[in-house]
Amino acid sequence: MDLMPGPDERVSPEQLEAWRAFDRAHSHVARQLEADLTELHRLPLAWYEVLARLAEAEGHRLRMSQLADKVMLSPSGLTRLVDRMISEGLVRRVPAEKDGRGFYAALADEGQRRLDEAAETHERGVRDYMVERFTGDELAQLTSYLRRIIE
Amino acid sequence: MDLMPGPDERVSPEQLEAWRAFDRAHSHVARQLEADLTELHRLPLAWYEVLARLAEAEGHRLRMSQLADKVMLSPSGLTRLVDRMISEGLVRRVPAEKDGRGFYAALADEGQRRLDEAAETHERGVRDYMVERFTGDELAQLTSYLRRIIE
Repeated sequence: MDLMPGPDERVSPEQLEAWRAFDRAHSHVARQLEADLTELHRLPLAWYEVLARLAEAEGHRLRMSQLADKVMLSPSGLTRLVDRMISEGLVRRVPAEKDGRGFYAALADEGQRRLDEAAETHERGVRDYMVERFTGDELAQLTSYLRRIIE
Repeated sequence: MDLMPGPDERVSPEQLEAWRAFDRAHSHVARQLEADLTELHRLPLAWYEVLARLAEAEGHRLRMSQLADKVMLSPSGLTRLVDRMISEGLVRRVPAEKDGRGFYAALADEGQRRLDEAAETHERGVRDYMVERFTGDELAQLTSYLRRIIE
């Protein structure tokens, strides 16, 4: 039995380069957003994302499992992150009263304030480091390509 | 003086969604590659990338600064990573004799062996999680969009 992949199993140099360009471009944007938010607002990018997702949610709160999905962290990674944000007063822990299982993470007033303070920096970064390099049509096409990867 | 951004300074919901789709799609691919490489070959994705970049380099070695640029790590982050790979026998430290400054990271025989062992898993992942979702023309266009972000 031949365990070597056939020619159709290999990725071409162009295909490998597509992944590397993807990885590099993502790192390029994320590192600059992280640097701006950390330097100007002492707010790591992951913290910003948690605050932004809570602010958008109904009642400004989300179950930990919903939040983990939105910010793409493992349950244990999110628990560690949220524990630190609770200890800094940015997030509150709210028991899920109806069924007694688990709890919600809720946006605290101080979290809303820090989010408001940092939002312009985040938007400027998203614009400068990514979206302004494309026309509206190009950005729509890029987004549709990216969604195809997620599906 | 009005410090609020004007309308043209805000990002639209579609523009914010483009960044979020980018972040999510990248996480989707990277986490699956990481899981496959770790489970099947006990090789984290960052280790695989270091081995692959060294294997491609002339003389199978790179200056630490060159390697840091290729794998998008900070100098201190790369030093910690390479130190662990040296202690596992995958990388060797080679003094830069000509000018006496710094050193090269060089691929060790065991590193080449582990890379060869894991390469098919990595290629299968790049194909399954990303590139096979696109025609050749689409992938070329996606790559060109991604390069525009890096420039």
